[in-house]
Amino acid sequence: MSQTAEHHIPSLTFRDTVRSSDADAVRDIVASTGFFTSAEIEVAVELVHDRLSRGERSEYFFLFADCDGRVVGYSCYGPIACTVGSFDLYWIAVHEKWRGRGIGSVLLRATEERIAAAGGRAIYVETASRAQYDPTRRYYENNRYVREATLKDFYTPGDDKVIYSKRIRGA
Amino acid sequence: MSQTAEHHIPSLTFRDTVRSSDADAVRDIVASTGFFTSAEIEVAVELVHDRLSRGERSEYFFLFADCDGRVVGYSCYGPIACTVGSFDLYWIAVHEKWRGRGIGSVLLRATEERIAAAGGRAIYVETASRAQYDPTRRYYENNRYVREATLKDFYTPGDDKVIYSKRIRGA
Repeated sequence: MSQTAEHHIPSLTFRDTVRSSDADAVRDIVASTGFFTSAEIEVAVELVHDRLSRGERSEYFFLFADCDGRVVGYSCYGPIACTVGSFDLYWIAVHEKWRGRGIGSVLLRATEERIAAAGGRAIYVETASRAQYDPTRRYYENNRYVREATLKDFYTPGDDKVIYSKRIRGA
Repeated sequence: MSQTAEHHIPSLTFRDTVRSSDADAVRDIVASTGFFTSAEIEVAVELVHDRLSRGERSEYFFLFADCDGRVVGYSCYGPIACTVGSFDLYWIAVHEKWRGRGIGSVLLRATEERIAAAGGRAIYVETASRAQYDPTRRYYENNRYVREATLKDFYTPGDDKVIYSKRIRGA
């Protein structure tokens, strides 16, 4: 199945640099997923502005997947303060119109390569246990992330925080 | 033993409001513990400035324990975004000169009451597994915090992140 899906992957260009037009692109992509509240969408956009205004001093790094000059997906990650080689993956999303073609996994792999090149040893990602996030958890598990911890009722009674991690080979 | 220790607790006044002089007080307290790097100390001070400049819009809340007009300890906590009733305890510290008198536990209890009054259901606190933090972990365990999760090698190989939590009764 996934072989077939990967067959349809369009030709992607990966880009580390952030442009001012990326703020709108990120808003479009995150909103298109239908997963996030407007407050959460604004947080995603705010991180782009942080990177644009603070440059290298920002702790947020981005990887954009462009196709024919359009941003179809992106990830946002960064080193975790006070750790040696642990990185958070804050956001990873593919525009709804481009989902189901394996772009998410290709983007994740490209992000892991960037993190490894930056000296990363491990990547952490947090998600929720509620049913809405079943595809998200499956996505990480399919990409060899390990469910390392669960914080019971963290978000609200009945909705746990789930922390996944993946060990990677640093540069 | 702890009964005897609590006998010596000086008369403390708790204060929620933040004064500009608290920035220096926090620096003194955090530095006095000998636990933190200068970068970490600056993070602690920065949170005071955030509260002073942004007021109610700041997500950082403080509780100061004053004795005879001097700040002897403090805690910094706040609601965790996108959760209903989960709070982070970011910092809690007592000045080295005042340690060993049970002030830390009294301050922790007073902080828990503030969080409960603000609708908190649960408090989360993160610490490290390395030996330096043995007293810290014992302190939370003595105060009925439960070791809920461990992220192996999170800080550096051999030094895990340990997440404690405590369920409290919200207002």
